[in-house]
Amino acid sequence: MNFPAIITRKKLGHPLSDEQIAAFVKGAADGSVPDYQLAALLMAIRLNGMDARETTTLTMEMARSGDMLHPDVGGVPVDKHSTGGVGDTTTLVLVPLCAACGAKIAKMSGRGLGHTGGTVDKMESIGMKTDLPEADFLRQIREIGCAVIGQSAELAPADKTLYALRDTTSTVDSLPLIASSIMSKKLASGAQGIVLDVKVGSGAIMPTYEGSLELARAMVEIGTRAGRHVSALLTGMNEPLGSYVGNRLEVKEAIDILRGKSAGPLLTVSLCLGAQLLIASGIVKTPAEGESMLLKALGDGSGLEKLRQMISYQGGDGSVCDHPERLAEAPIVRDVPAPGDGCVSHMDTAKLGYASQELGAGRKQKTDAIDPRVGFIMRCRVGDQMRAGQPLCTVYAARETDFERARAMILEAISLSHDPVEREKLLYALVTSDGVQTF
Amino acid sequence: MNFPAIITRKKLGHPLSDEQIAAFVKGAADGSVPDYQLAALLMAIRLNGMDARETTTLTMEMARSGDMLHPDVGGVPVDKHSTGGVGDTTTLVLVPLCAACGAKIAKMSGRGLGHTGGTVDKMESIGMKTDLPEADFLRQIREIGCAVIGQSAELAPADKTLYALRDTTSTVDSLPLIASSIMSKKLASGAQGIVLDVKVGSGAIMPTYEGSLELARAMVEIGTRAGRHVSALLTGMNEPLGSYVGNRLEVKEAIDILRGKSAGPLLTVSLCLGAQLLIASGIVKTPAEGESMLLKALGDGSGLEKLRQMISYQGGDGSVCDHPERLAEAPIVRDVPAPGDGCVSHMDTAKLGYASQELGAGRKQKTDAIDPRVGFIMRCRVGDQMRAGQPLCTVYAARETDFERARAMILEAISLSHDPVEREKLLYALVTSDGVQTF
Repeated sequence: MNFPAIITRKKLGHPLSDEQIAAFVKGAADGSVPDYQLAALLMAIRLNGMDARETTTLTMEMARSGDMLHPDVGGVPVDKHSTGGVGDTTTLVLVPLCAACGAKIAKMSGRGLGHTGGTVDKMESIGMKTDLPEADFLRQIREIGCAVIGQSAELAPADKTLYALRDTTSTVDSLPLIASSIMSKKLASGAQGIVLDVKVGSGAIMPTYEGSLELARAMVEIGTRAGRHVSALLTGMNEPLGSYVGNRLEVKEAIDILRGKSAGPLLTVSLCLGAQLLIASGIVKTPAEGESMLLKALGDGSGLEKLRQMISYQGGDGSVCDHPERLAEAPIVRDVPAPGDGCVSHMDTAKLGYASQELGAGRKQKTDAIDPRVGFIMRCRVGDQMRAGQPLCTVYAARETDFERARAMILEAISLSHDPVEREKLLYALVTSDGVQTF
Repeated sequence: MNFPAIITRKKLGHPLSDEQIAAFVKGAADGSVPDYQLAALLMAIRLNGMDARETTTLTMEMARSGDMLHPDVGGVPVDKHSTGGVGDTTTLVLVPLCAACGAKIAKMSGRGLGHTGGTVDKMESIGMKTDLPEADFLRQIREIGCAVIGQSAELAPADKTLYALRDTTSTVDSLPLIASSIMSKKLASGAQGIVLDVKVGSGAIMPTYEGSLELARAMVEIGTRAGRHVSALLTGMNEPLGSYVGNRLEVKEAIDILRGKSAGPLLTVSLCLGAQLLIASGIVKTPAEGESMLLKALGDGSGLEKLRQMISYQGGDGSVCDHPERLAEAPIVRDVPAPGDGCVSHMDTAKLGYASQELGAGRKQKTDAIDPRVGFIMRCRVGDQMRAGQPLCTVYAARETDFERARAMILEAISLSHDPVEREKLLYALVTSDGVQTF
């Protein structure tokens, strides 16, 4: 296969044939096509796009580039995936709740990337292991209903190569590349039910509603064609979802919610996604049934109990569930006061994510170590009326200089206005194989 | 400098700053930016373009990425560059003629690339050396007025890296990348007068007249800003320029012309370009004066004498000038007859070039050896009325199978029609710092 001819076709805006896409994926998986040719094709795809047939073929070829699993978890294996956000720890809320309702959640999660956090980092921040051997992973799901591990290198190896290249060549923000990257791993992992959380807004990979909707529809179509039960929720990311941003801080918020000590947007979205997971598992028929079942698991403490089990099974100390206050400790804990009176009118959520990265909660380079203690707690949401001096947020920092840099970024990221402003939308739409239902 | 941020800017269609372009060129020259990031930026430039300021900055940075020469050639150093064609050996005609008129031609040439031939390959096919040490190169120009060598690795090293990447990532056909690649080498070589032959048509790097005109204007503007005398001719490449295609075969046609035994489009274009070189050298004022002086050098044999000197100085056997028939020998010499009656209505000139490559006159991979003997002689031009069985061309091949493959390609490349067809235009326009003059 003449690879420059494949690049030329996409450069000229023509669709690639199935054979050309197969050659592209094979070249990425086995290293037979050099990085610079892959990079040129990725940029041509980013700028000239791919149609639905090309995107589906790309996804299936990537899924087949490695092992295709059929996990024995004692039930229907389901998984959830978020396109990434800030203060977005729905996994640690909904996975225990769904497991308490009888679902079998075989979840593979990622690390933090750019301005967004990653579940694997949060779990490691409280001493959990995320690289379980496959047999232990499956046994844990059979015994307690859930396990969350890092991405396996054997699944969709072509994606591993392409993802690393996209990250360094500014080709992350491409619909066909995002959709194929997410769905290839889910299809290869053997998940029969897949729930997608597609973010919308200033902290999302696709900032516009239209872009996010297109991405959600593409992923639902790919999964449905592959015979899986797939639904996607479009949820707001124009401000951090939860109030806590940072690794241990986000675990604390999840525990607070499961203890019934906290509620708010993070719980709302977790229930909505969790209900879809219960539908995908065949446990309930409607979102209302699902949410009611989840609220019961929240109220009777069985969700908290599942989290405790999962922490213990994966090598952590389950007693943190009784003492979440231990997770909010840092050398410097200090408020960022509002510079004047006004209504919170806008948050640059990506910038807030980068402030958290600057504090050490995320990586700038892949080899950076993460400080589990640092981050911040939001004390306001869009639409809140603030007085000068009132805290916009409380920063948890390791060093004085870190605090100062994060403070400046947070003040730049949060806009105040004289006029009152409406609250941000939290739930936009549900996309299933039946179509789009807007909220 | 954060390289992904530079890629992002061009990906979004914004102009790069001078500092960003400098970082790009430095990264290419010193290897500090990995190939895959350079490739992604090249594709973004190919698809989103560069404005005049960016293209000029790119050219100057590439020129300054290596040595900047001020050659002592005993006069005004001038050079000519063609964007590449088929059967296009103007260099071997006009360089001796201009030297015979007193010009000082310090010419750096390339090898064949894709479907186009290269002067260096043609010279090597008759045993000439093209890697002269700089001192010998300059002495030869001082003594006989001309020398033609291969591209020096010390000139514009950033271009060397980028050119190799462009060739394998389908990013050759980009105006700012072509213009900066050509002009950076000419500026670095110290040429004070530069004549550009920009091809138009099915065998050209820019197939449309508009694209070629834009390229010519960009290069003239860059050179003029850098204080050089630059002119560009737009010439036809909708059919091979000369009748001979192949390395020794093209040398033979050049010698036949200098011996006064042949004329036609190759001579017409060579005189036109040569006259511009004499103007750039300050030897004549007008194209008419230049052409008349060149015709005199053709008529009195002084042009042929210069070619003989150049061949001898560069290690070849000058007696080939008296016996050019020695240059047309191959194991198989056989006609390709016209399949039916008709008027030659169109030639896919790039395909004819690839037929020549298929015979072994060009390389498919950089390490391929060239067969100096092979190629073909065109026996028709667009507009010619042909009878079935009359030869369209005569192929010089090493093997029977090569002949068959080339024959099939040549028949595909040449279209016959029932209706009469006009001849192809040969000279389109002259671009100088004063503007565009169309013919």
